[in-house]
Amino acid sequence: MNRPVKGFRFSGVHAGTKPNGMLDLGLVVADEPAVAAGVFTRNRVRAAPVVISERRLRAGLCQAILVNSGNANACTGREGRESAFTLTRAIASALGTATKLVVPASTGVIGVQLPLEAIEAAIPALVSGLSADGASLFSRAIMTTDRVPKIAEAKLEVGRTSCRVLGIAKGAGMIHPNMATTLAFVTTDAAIGQRTLQRLLGQVTEQTFNRATVDGDTSTNDSIYALASGAATDRRIDGGDAAAKRFSAALEGVLESLTKMIVADGEGAEHLVRIDVEGARTDVDAIQIARTIACSQLVKTAIHGCDPNWGRILAAAGRSGARFNPDHVSVHIGKVEIFREGRPTMTTKTETKAAATMKGQEYVISVRVGKGRGLGHYWTCDLGHEYVRINADYRT
Amino acid sequence: MNRPVKGFRFSGVHAGTKPNGMLDLGLVVADEPAVAAGVFTRNRVRAAPVVISERRLRAGLCQAILVNSGNANACTGREGRESAFTLTRAIASALGTATKLVVPASTGVIGVQLPLEAIEAAIPALVSGLSADGASLFSRAIMTTDRVPKIAEAKLEVGRTSCRVLGIAKGAGMIHPNMATTLAFVTTDAAIGQRTLQRLLGQVTEQTFNRATVDGDTSTNDSIYALASGAATDRRIDGGDAAAKRFSAALEGVLESLTKMIVADGEGAEHLVRIDVEGARTDVDAIQIARTIACSQLVKTAIHGCDPNWGRILAAAGRSGARFNPDHVSVHIGKVEIFREGRPTMTTKTETKAAATMKGQEYVISVRVGKGRGLGHYWTCDLGHEYVRINADYRT
Repeated sequence: MNRPVKGFRFSGVHAGTKPNGMLDLGLVVADEPAVAAGVFTRNRVRAAPVVISERRLRAGLCQAILVNSGNANACTGREGRESAFTLTRAIASALGTATKLVVPASTGVIGVQLPLEAIEAAIPALVSGLSADGASLFSRAIMTTDRVPKIAEAKLEVGRTSCRVLGIAKGAGMIHPNMATTLAFVTTDAAIGQRTLQRLLGQVTEQTFNRATVDGDTSTNDSIYALASGAATDRRIDGGDAAAKRFSAALEGVLESLTKMIVADGEGAEHLVRIDVEGARTDVDAIQIARTIACSQLVKTAIHGCDPNWGRILAAAGRSGARFNPDHVSVHIGKVEIFREGRPTMTTKTETKAAATMKGQEYVISVRVGKGRGLGHYWTCDLGHEYVRINADYRT
Repeated sequence: MNRPVKGFRFSGVHAGTKPNGMLDLGLVVADEPAVAAGVFTRNRVRAAPVVISERRLRAGLCQAILVNSGNANACTGREGRESAFTLTRAIASALGTATKLVVPASTGVIGVQLPLEAIEAAIPALVSGLSADGASLFSRAIMTTDRVPKIAEAKLEVGRTSCRVLGIAKGAGMIHPNMATTLAFVTTDAAIGQRTLQRLLGQVTEQTFNRATVDGDTSTNDSIYALASGAATDRRIDGGDAAAKRFSAALEGVLESLTKMIVADGEGAEHLVRIDVEGARTDVDAIQIARTIACSQLVKTAIHGCDPNWGRILAAAGRSGARFNPDHVSVHIGKVEIFREGRPTMTTKTETKAAATMKGQEYVISVRVGKGRGLGHYWTCDLGHEYVRINADYRT
């Protein structure tokens, strides 16, 4: 990160939820109450912090987000809600702001009560550690099974001022966003109207986080928060003007980068693959086909085995529910055509080339299903032994 | 098998599709054209034998089913269809019957043309090997990654005569039936009207094969065939009389047994688990919740790890799309309650008991989601290293 986002400070400490002194408590604070928007999981089972955050963000203002990792505070009943209230009150008191301006976020094991005392005891160090340069510390404090922290940023010009958009997210399992995804935090020093921020966040989330899967399992805690301080400029972005378009593009760049980082760092993943579908009757059909291919266990194990198994790709497309004529389907792995107009075209030579592409860390599988105008894509990763090891051994 | 089903003969030989002399070509022949019904995959990408069988079975009569394993004859275009026509003509000629009374079925690798000459060369041995006791040979000839052959039978009384229903099926991957499933062949010596047979086959399939998943991937070749010779009795079962109810129960017993065998023998599976859901608003909701839990990668890896991870079960239920109140959910593993009315009740003692249940080969996970009347179940298995090994190494 070259330059901090004006008007925000970040912090991260070890409170004791995770072992070995690993960071497990993070805080984002805006100098003044920031314009805020959020997109939350559509899972019917929602963690306490999701319910509380969604309610508090309705007011459109937020000054602090407290995030703990290692414990999701989900399926924890009244006690879990009380814990979240208590912690946001403690943060508000330490910062000298109103409790309703503080929102909680949690990620980790489901169904275990938060270690309330340990977290409360860590709050003074967390608050005193706040710094404009703390985003890196914060990004590590929100990790669970992530192998690497995930930060992305973009710049945009508003009038004569350069503004920044900074996004920080975590993965790495129970990833199949539905209108929102795993935890992500966006801060910007641009000034923007709350409705515009909420609308753009929703639209961009649909195009980025909601086009990604690691294991098909939508989390109980998926949340994206966006906070705009307006500290870089007084010129407020609103409605659909040119600055709003630039802001939307910057936001999309940030969330698209985070989406790719999350899938690439999916539990046990070795390959990041974009499934591109074109020629469908509608975009909805194309996305549905791309999603079904992206979620197929057989496709994901073939990706792991670097096997250009177009049969599994076609079988997944065929069960997607979207209408298309199998005789008009073509498939490419990277630039290598392996299937054209309903028939395999793979030779020993092209199979070798396709397999070589699949050994790469990132590539595209393109599927044309006809001559329609429907377009869509989905990000996925491979399913390998490491995923099984992580998830058959990770106990409640 | 105690006694053959009257009016049918079976055979199985090695034609050369599979290596090492393994059986890969099977034949069922009725002495006279039998009343026939079929249920086929809803995958939009359908193998040549599925298309041909469905068309020919519309006439309601069938005398022979030719099944090859090791090659699915799917995505093989016009040449694949011609191969299937050629082979059914050759069988008809060898048996002295009409080609339209012979149907083909295939299972195995997608997108490779059938080894036509090898199969044609094996037909004389296949036909001369036909025997009333050949069901066991046939059941092995249709296997792909199956570890064990799958045969189930039931008896029923029609008037004073004892009739039999014999079912033979194969697994073991690309198993997530949609209105039909992997290959299954039912023969009965009862006499039954074609419409009644088709209706009962559809109903029973919905309750059995369509409630099972190994990997969530619906095959391009899923088919169930039912042939009734009437050789045991002249008294024809029709409509909804008492004999039809007994026949339906016998058929359900056979298909339920085969369903359990298929899931228990799912690729790499060590555990067979029934997900029971009750208290939903409707049966459709209950089945949807059971299906989503049964298909969850995280639940399936927890089953592999013998981990009573109710959090993953609740998260899957929550994203199923069915409406319920998370505060009214209770979960049992076998007889051990681990979650009641929205809150975990698991203690160290009950966790040990639940984990012990999960070490068993077969058990039930019960989920009550409210006080509604909706009921439903789904059969699933675990997702372990062996599944990844089989599917990351199994090349096109």
